[in-house]
Amino acid sequence: MDFYKNEPSVLLAVDCVIFGFNGDSLDILLFKRAIEPEINKWSLPGGFVQAEESPEVAAARVLKKLTGLGNIYVEESAVFGDPKRESHRRVVSITYYALIDVHKYQHVITDDYEARWFPLNDCPPLIFDHEEMIRVAKGRLRSKAALYPILFELLPEKFTLPQIATLYEKTYDIVLDRRNFNRKLLGSGLLIKLKEKDKTGSRRGAYYFKLDKKVYKEKIMSFLRYLPSWNIDSE
Amino acid sequence: MDFYKNEPSVLLAVDCVIFGFNGDSLDILLFKRAIEPEINKWSLPGGFVQAEESPEVAAARVLKKLTGLGNIYVEESAVFGDPKRESHRRVVSITYYALIDVHKYQHVITDDYEARWFPLNDCPPLIFDHEEMIRVAKGRLRSKAALYPILFELLPEKFTLPQIATLYEKTYDIVLDRRNFNRKLLGSGLLIKLKEKDKTGSRRGAYYFKLDKKVYKEKIMSFLRYLPSWNIDSE
Repeated sequence: MDFYKNEPSVLLAVDCVIFGFNGDSLDILLFKRAIEPEINKWSLPGGFVQAEESPEVAAARVLKKLTGLGNIYVEESAVFGDPKRESHRRVVSITYYALIDVHKYQHVITDDYEARWFPLNDCPPLIFDHEEMIRVAKGRLRSKAALYPILFELLPEKFTLPQIATLYEKTYDIVLDRRNFNRKLLGSGLLIKLKEKDKTGSRRGAYYFKLDKKVYKEKIMSFLRYLPSWNIDSE
Repeated sequence: MDFYKNEPSVLLAVDCVIFGFNGDSLDILLFKRAIEPEINKWSLPGGFVQAEESPEVAAARVLKKLTGLGNIYVEESAVFGDPKRESHRRVVSITYYALIDVHKYQHVITDDYEARWFPLNDCPPLIFDHEEMIRVAKGRLRSKAALYPILFELLPEKFTLPQIATLYEKTYDIVLDRRNFNRKLLGSGLLIKLKEKDKTGSRRGAYYFKLDKKVYKEKIMSFLRYLPSWNIDSE
């Protein structure tokens, strides 16, 4: 018996905002759309949620297919459900953002689509409401990264303090007091100093660090015991 | 032309976690479900997204109908889309949380449903995945309230410092150092001290405060310029 027989149905899609950090700019991965309508235009990668899939599973499928990467950091961003967001059919899209290490990203080559990294602040025009999806995902990333050290997902295995600072600067569009930032960072217990130095940036060089994965997991998982920080957004 | 004709469709619902603060416990408003299946069981208030509605508009409609309140604080929480979350038909639910001042809440009486406030930690068994929806909404509320002073939405026009502290304690399941908390709070610029005292709690009484709505709006709206606070979740 169908109790809900008078309710309207919709198509459900997922769209993914894939962030990467190339050492200098925060980028997102865009695709030339392979299906009608709006075929061949730049868009976020996405797909329809299939009958046996939850939306999270659909997002993971899309990400795996397009980046070659499984087991990456993914968070729900927001739902886009304006009845007129696509003109010919009602499609409600659930958006996700993913953080990947661009060094691990495998460029999956097929005849179906073309993929390219673009700086977040310099993307081509996108279809439908995809530009708004990126704007919202950036806001979610900023909020989440203010409470949890998730930006490390964007860094390679070994990284330097200036690299982390640049990543935070690009994410928040700010200029950091590097000394103060480094002090907080080293005090966080998240980093393990390596013996090796990166000499590409300066003559003196910058020590490489790696993430203490145990501490990181605790910080990522620990829901709470955090206190509201009254001044955090007035700095 | 229907480009998406082979894609499966779903029913889309909204469910709302309505938080209120009675001065002592953080509560949520539950309803006895008025429709089949699972009629008469306790559940979150919800409804189906109609053809001409976005999900946000559907949530506002449900909230207005059930609380009598328009223009309340609402945030998207998460999507619940497991293919088997309802047994007889696929329904994907978008959940929202709302913060209301219980003093403004109007108990809307109809023959259709019964509504009651329950302490967050002492709810009756709920239908489907509604208990998980509450758990997730509580987490979202905690994250958001750590960055923005949104918990004030739960307080009446006039409130005391001990009231605010209790509200934060109940939200985060912590015991605050009241002195330190009051100092941070008074330093936030959010509060205007009134001349009147609340004498119900102690002989000395506690001054009433009201929110500086201008500062509040700035803090609520100001997306960013906040810096990651490394130690925030290790306290």
